[in-house]
Amino acid sequence: MSGFQRVAVIGSGAMATVMASLLVDNGRAATLWGRDAGQIDLMRRHRENHKYLPGHPLPAALALATDPVEALDGCDLVLASIPTQQIRSVFGTFAPLVPAGVPVVSVAKGIERETLLSPTGVLADTLGGPDARAYASLSGPTIAEELARKLPATAAAACRDAKVAAGLQAAFHADWFRVYTNPDLLGVELAGALKNVVAIAAGIIDGLGLGANAKSALLARGLAEISRLGVAMGASAETFAGLTGVGDLATTCFSPSGRNRSCGEALGRGQSLDGVIAGSHGVVEGVPTCRAARVLAARHGVDMPITGAVHAVLFEGLSPRDGVARLMTREARPESEQQR
Amino acid sequence: MSGFQRVAVIGSGAMATVMASLLVDNGRAATLWGRDAGQIDLMRRHRENHKYLPGHPLPAALALATDPVEALDGCDLVLASIPTQQIRSVFGTFAPLVPAGVPVVSVAKGIERETLLSPTGVLADTLGGPDARAYASLSGPTIAEELARKLPATAAAACRDAKVAAGLQAAFHADWFRVYTNPDLLGVELAGALKNVVAIAAGIIDGLGLGANAKSALLARGLAEISRLGVAMGASAETFAGLTGVGDLATTCFSPSGRNRSCGEALGRGQSLDGVIAGSHGVVEGVPTCRAARVLAARHGVDMPITGAVHAVLFEGLSPRDGVARLMTREARPESEQQR
Repeated sequence: MSGFQRVAVIGSGAMATVMASLLVDNGRAATLWGRDAGQIDLMRRHRENHKYLPGHPLPAALALATDPVEALDGCDLVLASIPTQQIRSVFGTFAPLVPAGVPVVSVAKGIERETLLSPTGVLADTLGGPDARAYASLSGPTIAEELARKLPATAAAACRDAKVAAGLQAAFHADWFRVYTNPDLLGVELAGALKNVVAIAAGIIDGLGLGANAKSALLARGLAEISRLGVAMGASAETFAGLTGVGDLATTCFSPSGRNRSCGEALGRGQSLDGVIAGSHGVVEGVPTCRAARVLAARHGVDMPITGAVHAVLFEGLSPRDGVARLMTREARPESEQQR
Repeated sequence: MSGFQRVAVIGSGAMATVMASLLVDNGRAATLWGRDAGQIDLMRRHRENHKYLPGHPLPAALALATDPVEALDGCDLVLASIPTQQIRSVFGTFAPLVPAGVPVVSVAKGIERETLLSPTGVLADTLGGPDARAYASLSGPTIAEELARKLPATAAAACRDAKVAAGLQAAFHADWFRVYTNPDLLGVELAGALKNVVAIAAGIIDGLGLGANAKSALLARGLAEISRLGVAMGASAETFAGLTGVGDLATTCFSPSGRNRSCGEALGRGQSLDGVIAGSHGVVEGVPTCRAARVLAARHGVDMPITGAVHAVLFEGLSPRDGVARLMTREARPESEQQR
């Protein structure tokens, strides 16, 4: 059996649970670590993640831990499945415990607020640069609840080290889950983060009841603007045209269940951002990502009108309706100028 | 007032009605021609297209005709809004009536079965080549019922003649309808036609209840394969990444109302193709387009696995579930090889 054999899964959300279960189904030893002792205790007793993934029994062989030593000791792969803004604090304390040379794969989709680093950028900051170990991202249109039901899905295992990417592919591939390798780690992480900003705008369109034509135009133009930023930063345009780009963007903009789209929808219906975030079951990554994207756009000289409008709605008091109007009333021109 | 002033709208479906109404709202004289005297008579009496666009009153100044001379005489633009497979027969009889040099813009999205020509290709075949007049396509994520409600939408006016494209932009632009120009007529027409094949596959995924992850992966890979064919035929990859490519594809795959997606959904639920087509209110363009796309793919040496699977389900007796399985079980490999 090729690929990784003993995986420490750091995090106890829906994605951590479903990925840990998949690894066990694939014959790997996996230990899921969570910081909330009460939650882990409930998971132990009921063999189910009631809080984040109700209705899906855990495989019998999945180990659960609150002690990071228990999870990390002897592992040959670390799966980081925690919100972007918490990676630094969690892995900062784990640094001495992560075995030397062991690769870390992240499933987070965001940008760290203060540093503008990607999830693997933060991990490298806390666990040593790419000379110390390989970093990877497993990303794509992957709604956890659908994965838990083993519905067909796809993802990219993105890593600059092709051997590690192939090992991840072997560890995570299943007949219902196709894993492709992609060397463009930067592009995969940027696409995964930036699509959440577009998804907030898509939700605003839903909340205002503006229809599928408007949302699809937004998707096309949103894809163009996040792709422009990605390419300016050194990512591959092909990544944005692929599973982790347009694929994940489509899921995030159209699936009713997504937190970022739902946040936008509530804003479109007139709720305040504070109210939406207080009511959200989990982190709305697109909110901090929007701030980060705006700074990156300015730094790289990239025009990002949708990101700018979302920023104005989130942080500058612009009404959602005026945000949409601002996008619709830009002067008419050739389509290709819009795309660049 | 720039742009065209007197427009013959050929067709009496939902899109013909909404485009004719928009032209009148924009101060243009428009005459809508339909072949069904009974329908046109009802539209005259009720000032509404009960059959295809119920609930939306026609503007008072919109003229209605069953005599093509009445519609075409003195016009400076023809809008062709009839299904692709009927363009040749309808415009064949009109040829002597269309004033010399007057441009024709099509809103059809398909490929003619016998000739593999695009809608404007068929028009040029019947009304004289591009030396005789300019041909254009107005296309994008444009569900007619949403346009009738004046919900925000976008489209591309695609024409090799930039002056005609600009005239179309002026004639159709509204504060709720942004029209972009695009010189890539071939790409816009191919994208508009081929996305219907992907939409049938998306519907099959819906009919089988396979979820948003699977449908988004299909969208990304479907976009890649129709883009590959388009580029092989001389179209611009940028068009497929834009409004008429990914934008229209997203609407067609995700909006519940589309005929092509709905056709696939019924197939996924176990209905026969004949039964679905008999029950469809209007033409399912993706069905003949799938045959055409398969021939074009072979001719240009382009790998189109999704089109092949849809073809097998539509015409070769493959079950929808086996069609999806065929796509999911292709050997795992680098993502970029899938995209090329």
